Amino acid sequence: MLTRRQTMTASTALAAAAVLPAGSTSEAAAAKRSERLPAVYRFALGELEVTLVHDGHARRPLDANYVRNAALEEVRTALLDAFQPADVVLSPFTTVVVNTGRELVAIDAGNGDLGAPGTGLFRANLAAAGYRPEEIDLVLVSHFHGDHINGIRLKDGTPVFPNARLLVPEPEWAFWMDEGQMSRAPEAMQGAFRNVRRVFGPEAPKVERFSGERELVRGITAVPALGHTPGHYAFRLESGGQSLLVLSDTATKPELFLRRPDWQVMFDMDGTRAAETRKRILDMLAFERMMVVGYHFPFPAVGYVARDGAGYRFVPAFWS
Amino acid sequence: MLTRRQTMTASTALAAAAVLPAGSTSEAAAAKRSERLPAVYRFALGELEVTLVHDGHARRPLDANYVRNAALEEVRTALLDAFQPADVVLSPFTTVVVNTGRELVAIDAGNGDLGAPGTGLFRANLAAAGYRPEEIDLVLVSHFHGDHINGIRLKDGTPVFPNARLLVPEPEWAFWMDEGQMSRAPEAMQGAFRNVRRVFGPEAPKVERFSGERELVRGITAVPALGHTPGHYAFRLESGGQSLLVLSDTATKPELFLRRPDWQVMFDMDGTRAAETRKRILDMLAFERMMVVGYHFPFPAVGYVARDGAGYRFVPAFWS
Repeated sequence: MLTRRQTMTASTALAAAAVLPAGSTSEAAAAKRSERLPAVYRFALGELEVTLVHDGHARRPLDANYVRNAALEEVRTALLDAFQPADVVLSPFTTVVVNTGRELVAIDAGNGDLGAPGTGLFRANLAAAGYRPEEIDLVLVSHFHGDHINGIRLKDGTPVFPNARLLVPEPEWAFWMDEGQMSRAPEAMQGAFRNVRRVFGPEAPKVERFSGERELVRGITAVPALGHTPGHYAFRLESGGQSLLVLSDTATKPELFLRRPDWQVMFDMDGTRAAETRKRILDMLAFERMMVVGYHFPFPAVGYVARDGAGYRFVPAFWS
Repeated sequence: MLTRRQTMTASTALAAAAVLPAGSTSEAAAAKRSERLPAVYRFALGELEVTLVHDGHARRPLDANYVRNAALEEVRTALLDAFQPADVVLSPFTTVVVNTGRELVAIDAGNGDLGAPGTGLFRANLAAAGYRPEEIDLVLVSHFHGDHINGIRLKDGTPVFPNARLLVPEPEWAFWMDEGQMSRAPEAMQGAFRNVRRVFGPEAPKVERFSGERELVRGITAVPALGHTPGHYAFRLESGGQSLLVLSDTATKPELFLRRPDWQVMFDMDGTRAAETRKRILDMLAFERMMVVGYHFPFPAVGYVARDGAGYRFVPAFWS
């Protein structure tokens, strides 16, 4: 079975490939492709066109604080059971873009140019999905953590969505924009408070606030899901008898926090309340067999929540 | 929260969108996008560049014969547990394209222009992956069912990979090309025999055959996995200490045949042997925690096999 090319050294083969004309019938291999492939996924939910736009993923070393109320060894076991590295947390980011036919809506905005290495792919993937940032009419914000809002404004101050209204949760705004809260917050949180001002300060006239459970635009309803942050929201999409819950960070990494909804990630600001909210919503999702998108779920981040033992399991939707 | 646009009728809004210049800051929504998004996924396995190229999916009504040795109600339950329709089998197709640096290799060829509606996306997705069919140096064929070989030659006779050698399993060739087997086969199988001749007949001089477990090109080893067809093969990719098994149809739909490896799909030609092979290989994959690609696994079709109760479960690889 050995052919001539198998006896060539790799460097000789590559040199030959470089000088051969395209479409040659020679035995030299095509060049490997270095361009990044798009990570976008689209489906219809009734009259809504839903596009999932990947913003890449971050890697952070797993330390004992990552899950506040679990032994490190248990967390490592959960990661290994998911066939992921046991010493690193892989954290993906996926933004939901909804075309209602009347408005093009982004739910959260990704890391922009301020995220960890491996993130910041939102704009390239939005382009691959056929949309320009100028076409976004409305940005719905689930909460004010940097990985959800930094994509609204670049490091140099440029607004990414120049034509978009910004719609944010009132309790989130009230907490983060409060000077008293900021002054009382520990040093480690000062950066987050400053970042909220960096993102929203110059936009203040365009920022609108919502509260309670209410339909924001036709087909998209804000659903309070407090605990992860003081004003954290999920969003329910409904059209043509179909529905989907955009979880935001109600549950972050499903390999950990669906399996063990009582576990509290270090970013849950009120861990007890976050876990209560998570369990209540996961229970509803599993019972209703409702479709779900999670911001930190594995791309394309859409699927279902199934009961599994004492916890739950994410079942990706069939790719079609 | 109601805005002017929410009080417009949908048709008015659409009409307005149609006449507004691109980049307008008006409140009219961007047009919905009708183009199909690419379904391609790429990763490195040591020195091998692996590209998964989706060929779409077929829908067939679920009938009592689909799983030969299971009650229809059990099959429906398994589909519902996977959050899929209970009365339809969704069957996706994904081809593996490997650039070894010396050769560009396609493992199986998709449905070409002879598949069910919803299939035949291989060529468009290959282009999205940055490759042209003329660049394929080698097509490895797992077995001779139409959904794996029809992509080699279009309905009108055109070869899709004009510069490729074809490498096929010797026992598969011996069975399907045998005139005695064809004459003894039931009427329902005559079409499959004729199709093998349609695809390979005109290519006979370029077809090479392999048998046993052997390295076909550097990094790709043929692994006998008999039962689904008389000469069915899997392929092991190995490079830089990493390995991956391309299952082909050793297990078809994982929602059914990983959960219940003893179940025999109607396309398993020797059902007993297919189930034995399946159980042996799934057991090895789960024990070794070896990465796997399945031709009928949900796109992008790459992941791991985990033990789950009396059977197994497919765990998609982390998208990165």
